[in-house]
Amino acid sequence: MSDKPLILVTNDDGITAPGIRALIEVMNEFGDVYVVAPNSPQSGMGHAITLDSTLHIEALTKKDEAQVEYSCSGTPADCVKLAVNEILDRKPDLCVSGINHGSNSAINVLYSGTMSAAIEAGIEGIPSIGFSSVDHSWNADFEPLKKHIRTITRNVLENGLPDGVVLNVNFPKEPIKGIKVCRQAKANWIEEFDKRTSPQGKEYYWLTGEFVNLDKGQDTDLYALENNYATIVPVQFDLTAHHFIQKLNTWNFED
Amino acid sequence: MSDKPLILVTNDDGITAPGIRALIEVMNEFGDVYVVAPNSPQSGMGHAITLDSTLHIEALTKKDEAQVEYSCSGTPADCVKLAVNEILDRKPDLCVSGINHGSNSAINVLYSGTMSAAIEAGIEGIPSIGFSSVDHSWNADFEPLKKHIRTITRNVLENGLPDGVVLNVNFPKEPIKGIKVCRQAKANWIEEFDKRTSPQGKEYYWLTGEFVNLDKGQDTDLYALENNYATIVPVQFDLTAHHFIQKLNTWNFED
Repeated sequence: MSDKPLILVTNDDGITAPGIRALIEVMNEFGDVYVVAPNSPQSGMGHAITLDSTLHIEALTKKDEAQVEYSCSGTPADCVKLAVNEILDRKPDLCVSGINHGSNSAINVLYSGTMSAAIEAGIEGIPSIGFSSVDHSWNADFEPLKKHIRTITRNVLENGLPDGVVLNVNFPKEPIKGIKVCRQAKANWIEEFDKRTSPQGKEYYWLTGEFVNLDKGQDTDLYALENNYATIVPVQFDLTAHHFIQKLNTWNFED
Repeated sequence: MSDKPLILVTNDDGITAPGIRALIEVMNEFGDVYVVAPNSPQSGMGHAITLDSTLHIEALTKKDEAQVEYSCSGTPADCVKLAVNEILDRKPDLCVSGINHGSNSAINVLYSGTMSAAIEAGIEGIPSIGFSSVDHSWNADFEPLKKHIRTITRNVLENGLPDGVVLNVNFPKEPIKGIKVCRQAKANWIEEFDKRTSPQGKEYYWLTGEFVNLDKGQDTDLYALENNYATIVPVQFDLTAHHFIQKLNTWNFED
């Protein structure tokens, strides 16, 4: 193995998605690239892991490509666990996930397989970044994103990341004016289930919904994205609401 | 509908699990209980939601039971979304999830369907608690847990919870000495995949692993559980690592 950085690339849209292809291209400029990504779309999988079923890995690399590739039958978080524990000879210097076809700003960080893969790598002690674009289209143009991905990647490789922190990067519609460090906006989905009847007369539902932003803060990812800035939210996986511990200790837990 | 609290009960082990039966029993003392839970086990589903498939709901209630029950084909987070948006006439006063057969302390909060259901309810603005027991057994004795569940439930109904905070409650082995408010321990799984060969000669993996606690803090959930205390960790779903924003702003993002 060379002395270049070892970079793990994954995603949740599946190994054939244009988004991960664009990310692989940029990462090949920085180091030795291993791709371990789902063999089928895994959007909305959150931090799911495969406990009740088996996992399969398939080596895909063609000889004329710079990177080594494996597809995996599991979730994005499974891919990272398998890469680190079964596929790679050493811990990667960086893990990048994406580029997701669709935004992972605000509360979407929780539902996102892209970000859960990045968080899983963070748990494993690997500096890690999730990249997403607000453009859902399979034909999205990732070209204008690449220089910003380079800038952010270079910063993470040079500066590292603190223990317990990964980066959630989202790209706006064009033109991209620059990069802003933000906090996660307080904005949620208001669900509207689409209720239908099957040919057999059985009712079923599709999850749909409207995204509603009640957070007027100008320091949020949503505000910056709406104003054509790429956003970086530092994300932590210590979920403790430390600010509420003191108050909670005043509650009466005596029976 | 009565003027008693409206309580939504869900879990990730499935609607037939003994853990949810014990929780329903306690909740019937407090209010009008609606159960909307997965029709099959959903452990390790994290905050997954069903985007690429349809969802089914089945009404299960027998006339001689206090509570109303629905089973759902989706994930724990789906169950909460369906309950709030399709099944219930008004927003519940409380959502409880569990009792999970297995601990959701430390980093397990991220993988847990139990806690993701509670967090989903929190996102919907519902005071919400996830209950889990370190005892994995299907035959676990939930009787000694009930008085503590009553105490915690009473406190939440009386005091409410701040916006953006839900409670992660874990029960230790017996004897339970009391209840402690804690922070999430920094303790992770070290994966050890069990590699096997199928009868057809194809390699596959089972995810296994060892749970390793490197956090010596006496204010952690793991420390309290090991010392036979039930633990309450207040959990937030703003994942922003606010402490790193200032430093991140010193990075050079100019191209």
